[in-house]
Amino acid sequence: MKNQEIPYKIYLDEQEMPKEWYNVRADMKQKPAPLLNPATLKPMTAEELRPVFCDELIQQELDDTTAYIPIPEDIRNFYKMYRPSPLVRAYCLEQKLQTPAKIYYKFEGNNTSGSHKLNSAIAQAYYAKHQGLKGVTTETGAGQWGTALSMACAYLELDCKVYMVKVSYEQKPFRREVMRTYGASVTPSPSNTTKVGQKILEQHPGTTGSLGCAISEAVEVATSNEGYRYVLGSVLNQVLLHQSIIGLESKIAMDKYGIKPDIIIGCAGGGSNLGGLISPFMGEKLRGEADYRFIAVEPASCPSFTRGKFAYDFCDTGMICPLAKMYTLGSGFIPSANHAGGLRFHGMSSILSQLYHDGFMEATAVEQTSVFEAAEQFARIEGILPAPESSHAIRVAIDEAMKCKETGEEKTILFGLTGTGYFDMVAYEKFHNGEMSDYIPTDEDLQVGFDGIPKFSGNEF
Amino acid sequence: MKNQEIPYKIYLDEQEMPKEWYNVRADMKQKPAPLLNPATLKPMTAEELRPVFCDELIQQELDDTTAYIPIPEDIRNFYKMYRPSPLVRAYCLEQKLQTPAKIYYKFEGNNTSGSHKLNSAIAQAYYAKHQGLKGVTTETGAGQWGTALSMACAYLELDCKVYMVKVSYEQKPFRREVMRTYGASVTPSPSNTTKVGQKILEQHPGTTGSLGCAISEAVEVATSNEGYRYVLGSVLNQVLLHQSIIGLESKIAMDKYGIKPDIIIGCAGGGSNLGGLISPFMGEKLRGEADYRFIAVEPASCPSFTRGKFAYDFCDTGMICPLAKMYTLGSGFIPSANHAGGLRFHGMSSILSQLYHDGFMEATAVEQTSVFEAAEQFARIEGILPAPESSHAIRVAIDEAMKCKETGEEKTILFGLTGTGYFDMVAYEKFHNGEMSDYIPTDEDLQVGFDGIPKFSGNEF
Repeated sequence: MKNQEIPYKIYLDEQEMPKEWYNVRADMKQKPAPLLNPATLKPMTAEELRPVFCDELIQQELDDTTAYIPIPEDIRNFYKMYRPSPLVRAYCLEQKLQTPAKIYYKFEGNNTSGSHKLNSAIAQAYYAKHQGLKGVTTETGAGQWGTALSMACAYLELDCKVYMVKVSYEQKPFRREVMRTYGASVTPSPSNTTKVGQKILEQHPGTTGSLGCAISEAVEVATSNEGYRYVLGSVLNQVLLHQSIIGLESKIAMDKYGIKPDIIIGCAGGGSNLGGLISPFMGEKLRGEADYRFIAVEPASCPSFTRGKFAYDFCDTGMICPLAKMYTLGSGFIPSANHAGGLRFHGMSSILSQLYHDGFMEATAVEQTSVFEAAEQFARIEGILPAPESSHAIRVAIDEAMKCKETGEEKTILFGLTGTGYFDMVAYEKFHNGEMSDYIPTDEDLQVGFDGIPKFSGNEF
Repeated sequence: MKNQEIPYKIYLDEQEMPKEWYNVRADMKQKPAPLLNPATLKPMTAEELRPVFCDELIQQELDDTTAYIPIPEDIRNFYKMYRPSPLVRAYCLEQKLQTPAKIYYKFEGNNTSGSHKLNSAIAQAYYAKHQGLKGVTTETGAGQWGTALSMACAYLELDCKVYMVKVSYEQKPFRREVMRTYGASVTPSPSNTTKVGQKILEQHPGTTGSLGCAISEAVEVATSNEGYRYVLGSVLNQVLLHQSIIGLESKIAMDKYGIKPDIIIGCAGGGSNLGGLISPFMGEKLRGEADYRFIAVEPASCPSFTRGKFAYDFCDTGMICPLAKMYTLGSGFIPSANHAGGLRFHGMSSILSQLYHDGFMEATAVEQTSVFEAAEQFARIEGILPAPESSHAIRVAIDEAMKCKETGEEKTILFGLTGTGYFDMVAYEKFHNGEMSDYIPTDEDLQVGFDGIPKFSGNEF
C-alpha cells in the first residue's frame, strides 16, 4: 500500500484490529518500581491487593515480563462498537499552517464517553463481571472516566457506583445525567454514605471535595461491600496496558501506508493516553529497532514531569492507597482552581516516570491560554472541538509543525487527540471572555506538596 | 462481497464516496408544488428569490428534473473530514431484543456539530463563498443547525450571523459557546439589532422568542446588508438534495454487502434527514425498480404528517417567506414548551409532503416518554447517547423489530441516527426525574394553527 495517496482518515478493518494488548514493561530493561505497602515498605503482593482490585487486573498490574496479553473476545466485540478509531491526516491544518510537516492524529473522542477512557473501562468492567462480582466503585473528577465506566457497566449489566467530586457534580450536571442515563449511581463527594466522607464533612463542613477524597470513599465502599471492587482510570500499569490499543491501531494504520512518525506527542495527566499511544513505538525504541522522539505535554499549572520529584508517593490525597514510584508534586498538591479540564493529578504513571527518568522521552509544560488558542484554531480548521486535555498535545504539535516551517524539514508528527470538549464549554467561555488564568505555581507553592512526600530510606530526592 | 460476515460498522473508502447528490424530484411523476409569491400567488422566480438566497442554491431549489448534481470538489474535501459516516449493524441491540430482525443505522452524529446538519451547511456556505459574498445569516432553535453553519463558515472564512431563539440562548449556553468557538456572532432573538426584532420587543416585552421571529430577523439582516444572504437548515428542496449524501452512502454500503432493507425509518421535523436518507431508495421505488416501506416518525406533540393539512402555508411565523405546499399545522402553531429537542416545525418539506400524499411513504407519531425510553435503552446497549430527535426513529425501529420477534419475520430495518444528545441533558434529566410531559394537542389546539393557513383559490383543504 506504500506510496498511494494517504486518505483523510485511515480506518482499519475489523479483522485488522489488534487481538492482544502490548505490555511495554516487558521490553524495559529498567522496570518500573513496584507498588509498596505503606505499612511495611515492601512490594505489594497480589494477596494484599485482592480486597481492592479484581484478581485478573492484579495479575496484569504485577506482570512486567509478558509482552503480549490476549484481549478477551467479549472486550474485542465491545471495541468494535466504537473502534477502530480513525487515524486522521490533518491535511487542513497542514495547509493552514503552510508547514512541510505531515501531521497525523489518532482521534479517540468518537464515542459517547467522549474520550479514550472507555478502552480501559470496558476491560476493567469485564474482569469484574468475569470474577462474578456485583459491581465496581470509582471516583471521577471532570467526568470522562465516570462516564466511560458507566457505559461499560451498563453493557455488562454490572452495578456502578461513582463518587464525583462535589464541585464537578454541581458544575457539570450534564456529565452526571449521562452517567445516570447509563444507570450508574452518582454521589457527590464528600458524602454521608461513607465513614471517611462523614469524617471529612465534620472537619471541613463547606468543602467542595477533591479527587483524593473521592478515591477514599470509593475504596471504602468497594472494600466494605460484598461483591464490589474499586477501579481506577489512569496511572496504573493495567490501564496503560489496555490503552496500548491506541498505539497498536495507530502503528498498524501507519505501517499499512508506509508512514513512520518522527515525533509522537501526547498530553499527560496520569499518563493513560500518552502511555497507550506511545507503547508499541516505545517498544521498538527500547529494543533498538527504531528511533522516535516522544513528547509528554503537561499543564504548566500541574507540572509533574517538568518540576516534580522522582520518588515514592501516595496516589491519593487520603494516603490509603499503596505507594508508587513516580514523578510527583506530592500527594498534598492541589492545582489552581483556575485550571480547566483534567490533567490535575499530582503524580504520573510509574512506567512513564521510569522511561522519562531513563531519557527515553521528553516532557514540556504549556500554559492554559496558549492551549485554548490551539484548541480553537484546531476546531475551526479540523472541525473537531477538542477537550482541554487533548489540546495540550495540539499546542505542541502545532509548535513542532511551525518549527518545520522555519527549518524546511518534512517531519512526520503523530499526536493523540484523546477526546471532545462538549462538556467543557464553561472553560471555552472563560477563554472567549478573556477570563482565563495562566497560573503557574511558584517554587514555594510546590514546596508544600514536596514536604508531604513520604520520607524513608530509598526515597531521597 | 456478498455473504461475507457483516462488520459492526461499514465505512466506505474515500474513493467510494458519492461524487454527486441525488435529486429525487427528477423521478417524481407528481412534482412537489412550487413556492408561491404570497403577494401574487404565482410561482417564485429565481429573480424574486435572489435578494434572499445564493444564486446557485436558487437554481438547485427550482430544478426538479436533473437527477444527479455534481458535488464540488471543495465540498467533497470537507466531507472527507467527517464522512463517510458509519453504517452500523446493531448487533448488540438485536441480541438484547432477541429479534430475528436485522437492524442497521446510519450514524450522522460523529462530527462536532453533532448532527447531519453539517452536510447542507457546508454546501450552502460554499456557494455563498463561491458567489463572493461576505457572509450568511440564519436562525437556530435547538442549536444543531447554527453550530453546523458556524463550523462550515469558519472553514471557509465566511462571516456567520446566527439569531438564536432567546429561550435556547439562555438555556443552552454551551451551544452558544460552541458557535462562538467557530467565530460566529450569536444574537438572542428577538433583539434590538433589527426592525422586526424591535417591533416584536415593543409588542411583547417579555417574549422568549420563537423560530419564526428568528427567521424574520435573519432574513432582514441578510437583505439589508450588502454581501449577505440567508440560509436555512431544513424544509427546502436544496437541503434535501445535499442531505441525499446520507442515503447515497447508505445504499453504496448496503449494496457492497448485498443488504436490502425492507423498512427505512427516519425522524421528521422539517424533513432534511428523512428526505436525505430515503432519497435514493425512494428513487428506486418511484422508478419501479424496488419496493421499500418508508416510515416518517414525528412527535405526537407536533404531528404535521399525521394530523396536519396538505396546503400552501408560510414557512415562518412572521409570514415574510414564500408559501410552500406542505403538510402543515399552520404557521401560527406553537408546540408545547414541554416538548424536548427539535422536530418543532409546523410544516414539512414539500417533497416529502407530496410523496406522503401520493402514498409512497407512511407516517407515525410517537409520545415523548416512550421516545426517551427508547433513547436510554439504545444508549445502554449500543453505546451512543442519541439526540431526542433521532430517538423518535429508534423508538419505531425497536417497535418494528419487536413485531418481527412476534411474527418470526427476518426483516431488515434501516434507520437514521441523526445526532448525539450531549446538549440535551436537561431533557434527559427531566426524563430521569419523571418530570417529562406527554402533551398531545387537542383538535381545538390544532384549530388555532389551521385558522391561520392562508385562504385562497386552490388552497382548500
